[in-house]
Amino acid sequence: MTQVFADISMSLDGYITGPNDSVDNPLGDQGERLHEWVFGLKGWRARHGMEGGRESRASELMEEAFSRSGSFLMGRRMFDAGEQPWGEEPPFRGPVFVVTHRAGAEIAKRGGTTFSFVTDGIEEALRRAKEAAGEKDVSVAGGAAVIQQLLAADLLDELQIHLVPVLLGGGVPLFAALPGLRELEPTRVIDSPAVTHLRLRPARRADPTR
Amino acid sequence: MTQVFADISMSLDGYITGPNDSVDNPLGDQGERLHEWVFGLKGWRARHGMEGGRESRASELMEEAFSRSGSFLMGRRMFDAGEQPWGEEPPFRGPVFVVTHRAGAEIAKRGGTTFSFVTDGIEEALRRAKEAAGEKDVSVAGGAAVIQQLLAADLLDELQIHLVPVLLGGGVPLFAALPGLRELEPTRVIDSPAVTHLRLRPARRADPTR
Repeated sequence: MTQVFADISMSLDGYITGPNDSVDNPLGDQGERLHEWVFGLKGWRARHGMEGGRESRASELMEEAFSRSGSFLMGRRMFDAGEQPWGEEPPFRGPVFVVTHRAGAEIAKRGGTTFSFVTDGIEEALRRAKEAAGEKDVSVAGGAAVIQQLLAADLLDELQIHLVPVLLGGGVPLFAALPGLRELEPTRVIDSPAVTHLRLRPARRADPTR
Repeated sequence: MTQVFADISMSLDGYITGPNDSVDNPLGDQGERLHEWVFGLKGWRARHGMEGGRESRASELMEEAFSRSGSFLMGRRMFDAGEQPWGEEPPFRGPVFVVTHRAGAEIAKRGGTTFSFVTDGIEEALRRAKEAAGEKDVSVAGGAAVIQQLLAADLLDELQIHLVPVLLGGGVPLFAALPGLRELEPTRVIDSPAVTHLRLRPARRADPTR
């Protein structure tokens, strides 16, 4: 059955960007520090059309996430920040559904990536992403708001946090705006030299509307 | 050489208490969820005069922390919250230095625990704790403010975070009020069934006053 999973890098103090993030500075100050661990990996480089790189458990994790993804879900802000840097051949290579208030025609890029803009809410966007994923899974690309909405609505099956041992002192928190106790079950912990990869299964709540 | 280490349980969203913490509710709402993992451990129970309990890697970690501690450092608020529940035979069994603005006579309890109140700042409290520790290490018992001050002044040699896979949605953040990028080096990661134990070494900063 199609699983909905999110994979995201977070600082030890809980941020997914550095301070002072904006459209022009989407990672925030020093936010690139959260992503350095992936740039040298063979799995990441191959997906981005580059040769070489390290083979490691972290690289395998990256390849695992890419290969299970039949479609992608992301917020508008992430699309706006990424559109330019991703270029003409974005790394998704599959259908991407963008949750937004602004309608727009589908954009098709080289390599199989399409961006569809869904204006009738996250649940509808997720329904379409699941349909497009077929036998594969839906990868939630972010940002924090989308992950929070899915967690709050009990729609996320798996959360993989790449915990980077750095304190950023500010930025966009992954978990803000989620009142009430939520339990998660660790299903796998992998310790790579510079990052701890925590795979968690959010517990279903008796009443997700509370 | 005497090491200064802190050992603390933190939620996945970065809190060391639940929301609405106060002197009467020192752990905050649902904050006890952060500490459940220790209550059943043999090492913790033995230290608190109770028999039985589970032997596990987590229990060994607890015993390791107890046995290396020659003295303790804590904030006033932690002392105020703990004094009653710790009772006549507190689990420290050694000299405890309390950083405070209120002077007070030393309190001696059964089992070797003494509480000394240090009013001339955290560095002086640490100096006295190091002296008292002898060949052993100084255990920083908390709370967040003391750990933050030590981190900010580059005085913490080791931080062990017991990461509990729960979202509390509010409370006292472990890392608030620490501006600027800080790097930490993971030196050990242990995955016990319900908690991930991360041991980190804070990087020394070129200029800790910045």
